[in-house]
Amino acid sequence: MRLSTWLVPTLREVPAEAEVASHRLLLRAGFIRKVAAGIYTLLPLGKRVCSKIENIVREEMNRAGGQEILMPILQPAELWHRSGRWEVYGPELFRLKDRHGRDFCLGPTHEEMITALVAAEVRSYKQLPLLLYQIGNKYRDERRPRFGLLRGREFIMKDLYSFDRDWAGLEESYRKMYEAYTRIFTRVGLNFRAVEADTGAIGGSVSHEFMALAEAGEAVVVYCPDTTCGYAANVEKAESLSSLEEIGEEGPIELVVTPGVRSAEEVAAFLGLPVKQIIKTLIYRTEKGLVAALVRGDREVNEVKLQNHLGVLELELAGEDLVEEATGAPPGFAGPIGLSLPLVVDREVLHVKAGAVGANRPDAHYINVLPGRDFPVQDVADIRQVSEGDPCPRCGRPLLSVRGIEVGQIFQLGDKYSRALNAYYLDERGEKRPIIMGCYGIGITRTMAAVVEQHHDEEGIIWPVAVAPFQVLVLPVNYEEAPQRELAEEIYNLLREKGIEVLLDDREERPGVKFKDADLVGYPLRITVGRHAAEGKVELKLRRTGENWLVSKGEVLEKVTAFLEGKEFCTG
Amino acid sequence: MRLSTWLVPTLREVPAEAEVASHRLLLRAGFIRKVAAGIYTLLPLGKRVCSKIENIVREEMNRAGGQEILMPILQPAELWHRSGRWEVYGPELFRLKDRHGRDFCLGPTHEEMITALVAAEVRSYKQLPLLLYQIGNKYRDERRPRFGLLRGREFIMKDLYSFDRDWAGLEESYRKMYEAYTRIFTRVGLNFRAVEADTGAIGGSVSHEFMALAEAGEAVVVYCPDTTCGYAANVEKAESLSSLEEIGEEGPIELVVTPGVRSAEEVAAFLGLPVKQIIKTLIYRTEKGLVAALVRGDREVNEVKLQNHLGVLELELAGEDLVEEATGAPPGFAGPIGLSLPLVVDREVLHVKAGAVGANRPDAHYINVLPGRDFPVQDVADIRQVSEGDPCPRCGRPLLSVRGIEVGQIFQLGDKYSRALNAYYLDERGEKRPIIMGCYGIGITRTMAAVVEQHHDEEGIIWPVAVAPFQVLVLPVNYEEAPQRELAEEIYNLLREKGIEVLLDDREERPGVKFKDADLVGYPLRITVGRHAAEGKVELKLRRTGENWLVSKGEVLEKVTAFLEGKEFCTG
Repeated sequence: MRLSTWLVPTLREVPAEAEVASHRLLLRAGFIRKVAAGIYTLLPLGKRVCSKIENIVREEMNRAGGQEILMPILQPAELWHRSGRWEVYGPELFRLKDRHGRDFCLGPTHEEMITALVAAEVRSYKQLPLLLYQIGNKYRDERRPRFGLLRGREFIMKDLYSFDRDWAGLEESYRKMYEAYTRIFTRVGLNFRAVEADTGAIGGSVSHEFMALAEAGEAVVVYCPDTTCGYAANVEKAESLSSLEEIGEEGPIELVVTPGVRSAEEVAAFLGLPVKQIIKTLIYRTEKGLVAALVRGDREVNEVKLQNHLGVLELELAGEDLVEEATGAPPGFAGPIGLSLPLVVDREVLHVKAGAVGANRPDAHYINVLPGRDFPVQDVADIRQVSEGDPCPRCGRPLLSVRGIEVGQIFQLGDKYSRALNAYYLDERGEKRPIIMGCYGIGITRTMAAVVEQHHDEEGIIWPVAVAPFQVLVLPVNYEEAPQRELAEEIYNLLREKGIEVLLDDREERPGVKFKDADLVGYPLRITVGRHAAEGKVELKLRRTGENWLVSKGEVLEKVTAFLEGKEFCTG
Repeated sequence: MRLSTWLVPTLREVPAEAEVASHRLLLRAGFIRKVAAGIYTLLPLGKRVCSKIENIVREEMNRAGGQEILMPILQPAELWHRSGRWEVYGPELFRLKDRHGRDFCLGPTHEEMITALVAAEVRSYKQLPLLLYQIGNKYRDERRPRFGLLRGREFIMKDLYSFDRDWAGLEESYRKMYEAYTRIFTRVGLNFRAVEADTGAIGGSVSHEFMALAEAGEAVVVYCPDTTCGYAANVEKAESLSSLEEIGEEGPIELVVTPGVRSAEEVAAFLGLPVKQIIKTLIYRTEKGLVAALVRGDREVNEVKLQNHLGVLELELAGEDLVEEATGAPPGFAGPIGLSLPLVVDREVLHVKAGAVGANRPDAHYINVLPGRDFPVQDVADIRQVSEGDPCPRCGRPLLSVRGIEVGQIFQLGDKYSRALNAYYLDERGEKRPIIMGCYGIGITRTMAAVVEQHHDEEGIIWPVAVAPFQVLVLPVNYEEAPQRELAEEIYNLLREKGIEVLLDDREERPGVKFKDADLVGYPLRITVGRHAAEGKVELKLRRTGENWLVSKGEVLEKVTAFLEGKEFCTG
């Protein structure tokens, strides 16, 4: 292809709205353009990269026995009523009516639809297992779409669904997908980690996320530094060994005046206690009413764990008004004693023998509070947020943490959807049994952004060969000069004929502009045709390392081929 | 692939709702399943065919210089307000609001969005011409979705948009696309015809439709039987030579009583006149009010022509109430004399010298009516529906007509969208000029259905090799029998290794079921491994002709390869 005819609108300025590298660079290098919040057009180079990722995903899905299908984006509400998710999904679900007033949504995922399909078409154990997948648009009306392709409202996803006779079959399908995902993310060039994950709105029991490690990631992963242990989990889901340390010594409960002293740290300092001796009481609003959650003063509540424990759809910290109404005191003085709300008590709180809690009146706390004696501890659970340094739940070593971009997630769904949508089969003995399901997603456009997060420098993107929009750029420094133009054309045509994806920068631009654009777009290999053209020599330059070599035109094909095959191709 | 593991749910019964062959057969052969009216899932075989058509389209678009991009399906209303089409599109446009109450639609087409993109990115004549295309879902909330993939509400389309400096450039882009479309529809195996077309809601001046000829088609094409003339047009757009025949002789106008005589045929019979001497008056309702359209009694009004002539968005025959209110008479007695509505007079009406028209009172007509003398003829236009036998507008030969499925349409848009969305460029002299646009669509899923309409028989589909889901089926009559199984596996593996798309029917089904399924699905070539397996012989059978040959296993690869290359491959 000739760059002069291609739409690759590079920008010199850094777009103001772009906070992370992938967003900034994909805009600047002319891969994407914004249409509305969280909604993007893929320009020619962006579409090429996206198609390459799709093809890698497709190959690995097919290799694992997947069959590609294509389901509608427009989904009838009726299916979602059957699974009970029409109500659950809340404002993230784009909803609309057709001309006859029938309700539809834009599919954020396709469990309902595919389960209904399989329920209609599969009758016998002979038809199982079945792995069906598709690649297409998904829709989630995010409250805060941001970071370009990292969190969009319209995005491209691969979703595969597995259908097995039993849990053993599901384990096998799950293992196949786990391995396929590992191959995919390796092939696209990501540094990633598979971690235990919460199952969220999709449901099911076991789940793993594939996290591309990157500072821009919105997820936090904690992991054990001991690779033979290998524990790693999304912090939303992560556990750690609970502290069994007994804190304080039992004594008679006492009311103390604490004027304007609110946070656990303030209370601890004011009372001269360690922070961990404070028991924090947080009031949450849910669709079932208010709830109080208790954790040690040096801990944070993990809202995902709390939400799962309560089985509620909505959970957020109650506002000041609600807190005052429920406790009779301004925020900072809430406590479990005499509080007429359900209490969820974190496990570690049980080991605090003389805690300090808010007194549910302004400017007052209780001290020497003993859980069980002074307030009820019927509802004890792990609702604590794990953080770096906490002991690994498997081996006790201090956990490390890192930020990640969730590029894939796999779920063992079991029979949640098959029962709801009536997907049963007859086994060898003619008995009717629910089909056991799994589901497996990869964010295609998000993967593209994750690759950029991991592969860039000050000058621009550095595409891994496997997903580069073009593998090679031929850059004549001055296209107007005959020797340069002719040699550039010769090399361009030679490489094209060999099936190499090569772009020729035949624009009448200043050399500086061309070099800057080449680095910004991030072609893995640049062939510069400049002042040595007359001698039949060109420069090969690796975008990743900046290494470069002067080679004669006769060697170009061999060197380029070696590079694309990942071989050592130049020395000295 | 092994059929035992694939989801190909064939149906023995004919689905009741399927009126046309493609709908019936795509359902029965397990290519598609309905999710809601006009909304379908593509099953594995359907997805394979669809991808093949997409790839042929993609190759030809790239060959013509197109660059693939991907625009969002969710389109902000704002863009549509700018073009004025938010109002125009009416109930066919799926509309929705996001969580912030902002208006969006699901793109039925992308002129607005791509013009806004190009307006932002193209500044100079150096960046033109530009051909941008995408392949993806489109949405039209049809009043009557029907015929399976032929008229859906969600469907796959390829849409390309051309951007040129001037009309000469547009002509060149248009010619390239015309040629690319001709190659595409030839490659997918369609018998088609390019015809002149109305530009409809898309707008613009010149347009052609590519019509796959088929009885199931909703469109009617008229064409000149003389191939050197070559005139062909959608009947919505078609013209023919106007009749210059003078009908009747001038005389004094006269009121006659015509009790209960309403239709042109009835009036003619009652008055003893030829039908062509009657002048029909039809009352239409538009958003600008009522209008009367006049044609000869032996002609029909072409509502598309009338609508274009009036420049209205809505046009439909007025109901009885409106007709009575406007004319003072029940339907059947409307006429132009004394009628206070705008009159549109078809050209041929001018040659009626003594017409009969309704008298705008019950049971009465006027005779000896002379247009111009007895009613005004300010607004004369061609609003007549052409029909078979009418004289070709180019050469005068009687036109023929045929039904067709519109699989593609191309438009010369000119500057309609570039002016509305501010897409200008600077020419060589630094002058600002509007970009001249064209747009070019292909219905991918509709093309799939059109192929089936043209390629099927009583037993099922007969796929052309280029778009067949698999090119070859290996069918062991009894997979349980070792010699058959082993030979079938051997041939299957041999063909697979050679990159041939082959499916092995390894199911434990009765031979009759396997043969019926093979014919229903329509694999172009079947290799039956039966009782001659022990001698190392198999039967090759062509789905299209039913011809078959017994060949030894050593010959299979050569024969199959010859068949796939379109060569004569077996004789005798």
